Amino acid sequence: MALCLKKTGMAEKVIGVGNNAESIAKALELGIIDETMPLEEAVKAADIIYIAIPVDVTIDVVLQVLNLVNDKQIVIDAGSTKSALCQVVKDHPMRKQFVATHPMWGTEFSGPAAATSLAFAGRACVICDKELSATDALSIVEKLYKDLGMHVIYMNAENHDIHAAYVSHISHITSFALANTVLEKEKEEDAIFEMAGGGFESTVRLAKSNAAMWAPIFMQNKENVLDVLNEHISQLRKFKASIEKENINYLVELMENANKIRRILK
Amino acid sequence: MALCLKKTGMAEKVIGVGNNAESIAKALELGIIDETMPLEEAVKAADIIYIAIPVDVTIDVVLQVLNLVNDKQIVIDAGSTKSALCQVVKDHPMRKQFVATHPMWGTEFSGPAAATSLAFAGRACVICDKELSATDALSIVEKLYKDLGMHVIYMNAENHDIHAAYVSHISHITSFALANTVLEKEKEEDAIFEMAGGGFESTVRLAKSNAAMWAPIFMQNKENVLDVLNEHISQLRKFKASIEKENINYLVELMENANKIRRILK
Repeated sequence: MALCLKKTGMAEKVIGVGNNAESIAKALELGIIDETMPLEEAVKAADIIYIAIPVDVTIDVVLQVLNLVNDKQIVIDAGSTKSALCQVVKDHPMRKQFVATHPMWGTEFSGPAAATSLAFAGRACVICDKELSATDALSIVEKLYKDLGMHVIYMNAENHDIHAAYVSHISHITSFALANTVLEKEKEEDAIFEMAGGGFESTVRLAKSNAAMWAPIFMQNKENVLDVLNEHISQLRKFKASIEKENINYLVELMENANKIRRILK
Repeated sequence: MALCLKKTGMAEKVIGVGNNAESIAKALELGIIDETMPLEEAVKAADIIYIAIPVDVTIDVVLQVLNLVNDKQIVIDAGSTKSALCQVVKDHPMRKQFVATHPMWGTEFSGPAAATSLAFAGRACVICDKELSATDALSIVEKLYKDLGMHVIYMNAENHDIHAAYVSHISHITSFALANTVLEKEKEEDAIFEMAGGGFESTVRLAKSNAAMWAPIFMQNKENVLDVLNEHISQLRKFKASIEKENINYLVELMENANKIRRILK
């Protein structure tokens, strides 16, 4: 986000705040941030405060920042879960200065060195509960994401969390579990390394993702994630049953149904 | 394969044989094949016979072709399962003219229009039971794959099928099942379409794969596939249990274990 804002000229200066000194030093070195300050000081100096940290600490930091801002400043978060956060900040006197967003982009890599100014373009950004944000703040945030090439979609925080469970959170669990399956059963790592084709790489890619980021997401979206995970296990059991019973018609039917995903994904 | 062989000048002429007239016409139109003939006639005219059809019909066709060839001709198959085939052809008088191969490359698309001459480079090709092929035939096939940029690895047919279950077959089942999960639970297709990021696309990509190709693969590799599938379901259950019980330490442990896949995949 910092790289994109600087590249497009939307941000004159980016102040980085973080509790990992190594990451801050790396971000300075890479030119992602221009300087660093303690949180309180940085908030005072900023027009826009963008909070992109694991979702379990996002709630406290958003509250802390809202306690510091005036009604000319804008606070944005970028977390993958929205219900718990939006619920907690709902009655804050500065709620209208806050815009709850989820830019739907990420990779399996984390840390400053993984930053790329090519992020975001062509992807969706969800803005939640927009009616609770001030019109001015909302317009600026919409413009910011649109200038990065994103299309903005709107939904309430509860619906966001349901949809995110389907299109993002379950993919990560599947991929983590698939990696564990292969690591558990396949002791001949050389064979994986040699044989793994593009299909394996693409289904298992997300298993490289950061555990400290994903654990709180699954926890905050527990009910929705479990709902989808139960359905996924039951879908896998259908494959298991059809193969066990050599019911080829059923197996083909399951796969042809899955092919309908073509209708949705180009 | 035909495109690659023609592009590199390894094949002067490619005769296409198939029982789908539309596919044959398309392959002619696209210049993938130069002409078409009935199987028997084509085998007589060919130096190398390359069999790339669903694995349930591969066995019969390989036998049929081996009944027609002389000891100057080479027969190759490209199937994703190897045990059943190698078992059946083992005692054929022309077994030595046959080389059992599995070039580990593919996409979720099928048919002549999906062909690309950029296939294969940088990927592995498994050759099974090489000691049962004539030295000359083996050398030519090794050169053929190496000239396409593949690295050749050797294993017996049984080991191939075990490894293929881990690094290819389970990825496809997971992806099919994930597509069905989302299609089943997520009725708001617009939301999937709008929100689906790169993560979802990459884990669900293989769900577009051809059912007629994959059903026989899962059937022929039934025991290995079920073994891996059971393990995968049990790995997913561990995620389920850790989220249900809000056991964050265990959840993080599961994900950090999955991160070890980084060691194997760059």
